[in-house]
Amino acid sequence: MLSAALTDGSAHRNCSFEVFARRLPDGRRYGVVGGVGRLLDALDRFRFGEPELAVVAKFLDERTVDWLREFRFTGDIDGYREGELYFPGSPILSVRGTFGECVVLETLILSVLNHDSAILSAATRMVSAAAGRTMIEMGSRRAHEESAVACSRAAYLAGFTATSNLEAVRRYELPGAGTSAHSFTLLHTTEAGPDEAAAFRAQVEALGVGTTLLVDTYDITEGVKTAVAVAGPELGGVRIDSGDLGVWARQVRTQLDDLGAANTRIVVSGDLDEYAIAALRAEPVDTYGVGTSLVTGSGAPTAGMVYKLVEVDGLPVAKRSSHKESRGGTKCAVRLTKPTGTIVEEVVYPADGERPDPGDLACRDLMVPMYRGGVREPGLPTLAEGRDLVARGLVSLPWEGLKLSRGEAAVPTRFVG
Amino acid sequence: MLSAALTDGSAHRNCSFEVFARRLPDGRRYGVVGGVGRLLDALDRFRFGEPELAVVAKFLDERTVDWLREFRFTGDIDGYREGELYFPGSPILSVRGTFGECVVLETLILSVLNHDSAILSAATRMVSAAAGRTMIEMGSRRAHEESAVACSRAAYLAGFTATSNLEAVRRYELPGAGTSAHSFTLLHTTEAGPDEAAAFRAQVEALGVGTTLLVDTYDITEGVKTAVAVAGPELGGVRIDSGDLGVWARQVRTQLDDLGAANTRIVVSGDLDEYAIAALRAEPVDTYGVGTSLVTGSGAPTAGMVYKLVEVDGLPVAKRSSHKESRGGTKCAVRLTKPTGTIVEEVVYPADGERPDPGDLACRDLMVPMYRGGVREPGLPTLAEGRDLVARGLVSLPWEGLKLSRGEAAVPTRFVG
Repeated sequence: MLSAALTDGSAHRNCSFEVFARRLPDGRRYGVVGGVGRLLDALDRFRFGEPELAVVAKFLDERTVDWLREFRFTGDIDGYREGELYFPGSPILSVRGTFGECVVLETLILSVLNHDSAILSAATRMVSAAAGRTMIEMGSRRAHEESAVACSRAAYLAGFTATSNLEAVRRYELPGAGTSAHSFTLLHTTEAGPDEAAAFRAQVEALGVGTTLLVDTYDITEGVKTAVAVAGPELGGVRIDSGDLGVWARQVRTQLDDLGAANTRIVVSGDLDEYAIAALRAEPVDTYGVGTSLVTGSGAPTAGMVYKLVEVDGLPVAKRSSHKESRGGTKCAVRLTKPTGTIVEEVVYPADGERPDPGDLACRDLMVPMYRGGVREPGLPTLAEGRDLVARGLVSLPWEGLKLSRGEAAVPTRFVG
Repeated sequence: MLSAALTDGSAHRNCSFEVFARRLPDGRRYGVVGGVGRLLDALDRFRFGEPELAVVAKFLDERTVDWLREFRFTGDIDGYREGELYFPGSPILSVRGTFGECVVLETLILSVLNHDSAILSAATRMVSAAAGRTMIEMGSRRAHEESAVACSRAAYLAGFTATSNLEAVRRYELPGAGTSAHSFTLLHTTEAGPDEAAAFRAQVEALGVGTTLLVDTYDITEGVKTAVAVAGPELGGVRIDSGDLGVWARQVRTQLDDLGAANTRIVVSGDLDEYAIAALRAEPVDTYGVGTSLVTGSGAPTAGMVYKLVEVDGLPVAKRSSHKESRGGTKCAVRLTKPTGTIVEEVVYPADGERPDPGDLACRDLMVPMYRGGVREPGLPTLAEGRDLVARGLVSLPWEGLKLSRGEAAVPTRFVG
């Protein structure tokens, strides 16, 4: 494609590409834009090195290979900030430059945004369902080893308290947390049989009584009894990873209180998703450990965003064949909110048109400049700011938007001009 | 956990960990072991560098940090070859060494095997459904940017013909293939309107008449007519990416034949999964382009494998609490087949026990040595050999196993000893 466009010169035409999602994952009421920070870092490094060029030289003409060797993105990018809510049709990213320089970025842009937005959107529903309780991300083992690090980052943006992925702790300076595994308890087996108390003693000796002991390796009631016997009533926490978590949480809470360990926290884990988290709201659970459903986007592992050419040398363009229409022209977007802060609608309008009149409503621009002339704009949101934006987004949703049940997008998108 | 085990000395006990899946993804009849080659390469490189140690030094004692600094895996690993079928309970990987050295490998091992096996298992169902037709993997944009490369590799193992991911082509020497995008056709728009013929001319000029032209940007029938007018009846292929693919394939085939382009191939794409592929079996489709459903494991994005401690200093150990029992002891596995090659059952037996008597059946050992004393064994399967193993696995399944509908595991696993 690039080679053909260089052959007839069309690779040098000025183009505008747009990232948007035709729809939200089935039944979801909102999406959250994730991956923007990772994407911008990757774009800064995006070059074709000699090992890569050697591969494409096998099937590409010399001019195209030379063009790739010299490739530097020189265009402009605007888009939604990381952590911003999005809805069907939201112009999440606008990439403008020559056709050649924009088209080679397609896969990277979509990979990062589709993956991270899928995880962030699911994680945000979980945080919303947890209603303020502590959440630990512990899904690395169920995801590709690099995807896992990005998942931890997305979980933090969503509002998770900490992650068990130490590479994410290192790379993004996230808070880390973890508990021990069943293997550690099983390790303390001798010819006389299992010795849960020995495992607990070792952990308390190394980490102090503030640690969290895993009590469900053999028998939960016995495990709790042994844990408090070993650590004393100042034990930090116990973790339950199996069984009916609601029933066990209540029973263990009573048992801990009876043992004088009233401040010992209860951590639950084991195939928790947003629905299971919500179902435990009435139970005495202090911390949720969430794994598989987080890193798989809880049923929606990719966000389904597309990257479409919308303008060529100032002319709007759009695909016309069935069911996959796109809207031509470079766009901007604003979000209108009531004085209470609740979103009324998102309005998408032509970038060369007039900003819609918000009437009595508050109006906020959704797209911020990210690159100008190939140079990254300063002052883009930090992870902490993105996390704050997610939290503010949640309270700005119409109340229907927070329902976990399947439904339509919580906010209408109106296209004008 | 590691710190506590170093404190009480249990980190040095001889342990045996096992990777297995308690069940297959919902309704699946077989799984395919993926990622072994990637895992072994990653294990060869597995070290804790100073940037990593600086992070853990913030919360770990000096002895543990020093242990991590000196970490080298010195143990033994046996396991199923990449491309081997697996079933619930199959001892896919056996990792033996001290507790400390085995436990730090857990996340890496599970990340790679769970991800790649999920993708490979889904991809294999698609290849089986395609019944010999050409398949191109084109899902990179819907997956994490590094996961995408591993997905291309898994697709190749499954039997896909080629991938559009050029980094996978480079890294694993896979065959590459791709077609143009709608943006390339839209790019050829002037003030006089769209000019599909100009786009096709540019592509044919750069790549010859053997190229595949994307004909559904505006109107498929017009697109096919224009494509043959531009490239002539020797046109390599046309791609249809929208609409009812079966209806369009038939109509386009007739149109191509009428235009004298009887050898022009028809490539279809657009949210294809194994069911859609099977539904197109009776249609004149030559090539399937598969994206989203491949990289998301077609509904099962992770394989659900676990890594469990099964033996400590020769003593079998197992978790006992509800519903998540594991079987203690290091194990081996054989697969019994009829003279026709059809699998009868998988038999799992204690590593220190006797190999089961196969009677009249053929019997094959499923676990091969991968590491001995921390050194990688030579002669492990190449990608091409893994691909061949997948193909042989498919023809060895009882015929029920190839059904796409939901069902039970196609092969029973019997535990003896």
